Amino acid sequence: MATLESLNQEIAAQSAHLVELRKQQAEGSIMDEAKKKLGELKKSLALLQGAGGSRDASKKKERLLLKTAKGTRDYGPGEMFCREHVERIVKECFTTYGGSCLDTPVFERKDILAGKYGEDAKLIFDLKDQGGEELALRYDHTVPLARYLAMNGAITTQHKLWQVGKVYRRDNPVMSKGRMREFSQADFDISGVWDPMLPDAELISLLCTILTRLEVGDFTVKVNHRKLLDGIFEVCGVPSDKIRTISSAVDKLDKLPWADVKKEMTEEKGLDPVVADKIGEYVKHKGGPELLELLKADSALLANASAKLGIDEMELLFKYLDAYKVMNKISFDMSLARGLDYYTGIIYEAITEASAPPGFEAANAFASSSTIATSSAQTHAPTPPKKKSKKPAAEGEEEEVDESQVGVGSIAAGGRYDNLVGLFTSAAAAEGKKAPQLPCVGVSIGMDRIFAIVWPKWVERGMRSKETMAYVMAAGDGLIAERIRLVQELREAGIKVCYAHFWSTQAIDVVFVP
Amino acid sequence: MATLESLNQEIAAQSAHLVELRKQQAEGSIMDEAKKKLGELKKSLALLQGAGGSRDASKKKERLLLKTAKGTRDYGPGEMFCREHVERIVKECFTTYGGSCLDTPVFERKDILAGKYGEDAKLIFDLKDQGGEELALRYDHTVPLARYLAMNGAITTQHKLWQVGKVYRRDNPVMSKGRMREFSQADFDISGVWDPMLPDAELISLLCTILTRLEVGDFTVKVNHRKLLDGIFEVCGVPSDKIRTISSAVDKLDKLPWADVKKEMTEEKGLDPVVADKIGEYVKHKGGPELLELLKADSALLANASAKLGIDEMELLFKYLDAYKVMNKISFDMSLARGLDYYTGIIYEAITEASAPPGFEAANAFASSSTIATSSAQTHAPTPPKKKSKKPAAEGEEEEVDESQVGVGSIAAGGRYDNLVGLFTSAAAAEGKKAPQLPCVGVSIGMDRIFAIVWPKWVERGMRSKETMAYVMAAGDGLIAERIRLVQELREAGIKVCYAHFWSTQAIDVVFVP
Repeated sequence: MATLESLNQEIAAQSAHLVELRKQQAEGSIMDEAKKKLGELKKSLALLQGAGGSRDASKKKERLLLKTAKGTRDYGPGEMFCREHVERIVKECFTTYGGSCLDTPVFERKDILAGKYGEDAKLIFDLKDQGGEELALRYDHTVPLARYLAMNGAITTQHKLWQVGKVYRRDNPVMSKGRMREFSQADFDISGVWDPMLPDAELISLLCTILTRLEVGDFTVKVNHRKLLDGIFEVCGVPSDKIRTISSAVDKLDKLPWADVKKEMTEEKGLDPVVADKIGEYVKHKGGPELLELLKADSALLANASAKLGIDEMELLFKYLDAYKVMNKISFDMSLARGLDYYTGIIYEAITEASAPPGFEAANAFASSSTIATSSAQTHAPTPPKKKSKKPAAEGEEEEVDESQVGVGSIAAGGRYDNLVGLFTSAAAAEGKKAPQLPCVGVSIGMDRIFAIVWPKWVERGMRSKETMAYVMAAGDGLIAERIRLVQELREAGIKVCYAHFWSTQAIDVVFVP
Repeated sequence: MATLESLNQEIAAQSAHLVELRKQQAEGSIMDEAKKKLGELKKSLALLQGAGGSRDASKKKERLLLKTAKGTRDYGPGEMFCREHVERIVKECFTTYGGSCLDTPVFERKDILAGKYGEDAKLIFDLKDQGGEELALRYDHTVPLARYLAMNGAITTQHKLWQVGKVYRRDNPVMSKGRMREFSQADFDISGVWDPMLPDAELISLLCTILTRLEVGDFTVKVNHRKLLDGIFEVCGVPSDKIRTISSAVDKLDKLPWADVKKEMTEEKGLDPVVADKIGEYVKHKGGPELLELLKADSALLANASAKLGIDEMELLFKYLDAYKVMNKISFDMSLARGLDYYTGIIYEAITEASAPPGFEAANAFASSSTIATSSAQTHAPTPPKKKSKKPAAEGEEEEVDESQVGVGSIAAGGRYDNLVGLFTSAAAAEGKKAPQLPCVGVSIGMDRIFAIVWPKWVERGMRSKETMAYVMAAGDGLIAERIRLVQELREAGIKVCYAHFWSTQAIDVVFVP
């Protein structure tokens, strides 16, 4: 211990010397030399401590790749300070809107997830079968929530539940845009029977409140209705077995020009071009509540039960959104379809200027024409994207990603899913349980995408990585017990305090950006 | 929509009727009938909504087991309210002690975890190889932290980093005692060169502050030193290749009587009984700093370099812990050994009355004798446990668990590990990186075990499940837009507010205890 101790003393002395030099505003070369000496002393100390170390140090290891798994990353102190800030705001809004917290396990029994994600099921991370259950990492928070509601017989009561946590998809990552294999989602879901469309409007209001408070910049919430969309497809003459696949083609209109989407409908999916053109006339519309008047003037559409229900519900929704004072953020976008199978009512998606892919203008509320006859469907995509990113489709289908051509994408999305809980209760019904439906509507906020937008602004402004308010230091070594007593007295008084030497003050706000 | 609407109206009317009945304090039978009618109306509504639902509803599912994976569970609103409270206190203490937040992925490349956990490696959850890297769920926060520090070249600076999150072990779960396969740990680690023993004392002080603020009841922090223990083994004549395995036998003295531990040392592990008895004389001691005087009077021990270093460091530690005013919580327990291989200095473990297995008294600070000659080693275990739980050892070895015989176990533990980061830097050194050591000391707090202690008290006291301060309701239906405007006005003023009908007020504080 003698050498350890003497080395520690030397290091402390050298540190004090450096502090002194800094005070005297010594020349750079003198400072550099003093720093170099301190570094060497610390290296010697590390070596000495290593030499006296445990058996482990002598074990020879094979060459090791020091990295995190593909599509995952660490968040160091600076980033976490920002992420915790974002999370705090989101949670505060959740509780302000009457939500209660739920926490489900990070993995589920495989059969719980099975049959819920359609084509995207191939993106599910499975656990190795180590003798026991077949398990998989959760793909979203919605299916575990539905499983929870079904398990706990929460069928006849109203709930507002939120969950913030990580979900997992074996996708092609684009790290710089917050598209990860491990990513954080903040979900808020309202279940049970409420006044019609009130929970739906409540969620869109919640989303607008959160995005405004997070200062993500100008944003738009695109809204549409699955039943309206299905009614349109029926009226246009889409065979019922093709409705879902045609719907997913329509959903690409935010990234592809109409010509490409039409080609997919007709050439790939075998739709009659006449039917496709009819669809095109409908789905090119974006605008506000005035679009409803146009739709209500369409007698063929009004005669369709599904479309009629969608129009009525949209009308009620807009009325409530007006009371929530968020209509200036809303774009009634008839091309919005959303990928997931389980939506049954309104669907929505929030985008920002920053989240749009380059070459595409973010859809601004009411910015595009709502006149049926004159506007060309091409306005959906003012600049065609490069060939390479021509088929973004489901994220998992991308083989090659040109990062410069990828936007963050939607930063939040959701919709109504009235039958998902019923899938669980009816599947379990054979065991003597009741099999009721439970209407639900929810929103998922992509925390990593929001972080990707907010973080550069934090860096620009300059930010901290911890909350320490005061440092207690001594000029030189010693007085440790005295410093401890002072530090503890301050902490007991609620002051966030730490020790500092000259060299530790340099580390106070170190930010890792790996 | 007509029937949906009329049903909703009927439900609202019936709800209003119920509110009215309640106000009039109507008889039980009348109330029951009204409630029953409301229930039927809601059932009809659910059925109707189901019938009008999507394609999904018609898909036939196989019988499904509605449950979470073994050793995992959901936490509903009531529990999460308590858990968030616990987490908030822990994080606040972490920042008060100068910590910065770190977040690492939930899974790591398999080779990062390999060779770090000894026998317990069999408890690691592997991911299925789906074409790509071999991955495994993290087993603790310490190894990912060490990987992070090695990757980011944070070798020459001081850091205080904390991480709260879930870790995974394929263990035999005892759910009621908070022993899970998915469980939450809160870690705080101090890396880099500081004044000797200052970070060690800082961590024990932090632990005492947290446990006091969490009101877990009386607790004791057992402390020992690996180098002292190794020195004792050397002095007693344990062959160097047996030191680790004898150490793990000694670690069982909190659960087994000396006779059983001695039997394990001699019969199973082939130690000379004379050597075992010598060890027994040392490790039976529990007490305070006065034990150091006894050890320093032992010339054979003082002549051992490792033991001498351990004694010197313990002396300094006690001096600082006294300045931190926590010596009344400390038990210098010479039988404490801790399982993990990587510890190189002080080790510690916090237990509470509530966390001890039944039949064993929790070790109270200074309660047991520190006189060498008179106290019997049997005092380590006043009541021998049942045969069934005779070999608790590593949790993973248990084939059968008698829940009534299992305590929560230690609620927090940690120690100094000066060579773990070096394992990574030296393994990666072949790629041209430097291979320095980085001294570290840390503590892990078992959040689920703390929750298992705190939660029953919360239930007793009666607690909430959400923070809602006010509810806006209308007597009967209608006025929805007006209510929305009022709700939003209140929310903008910072009031946490929600809507309520008669039936939703019942759900305000519903707590699920599955």
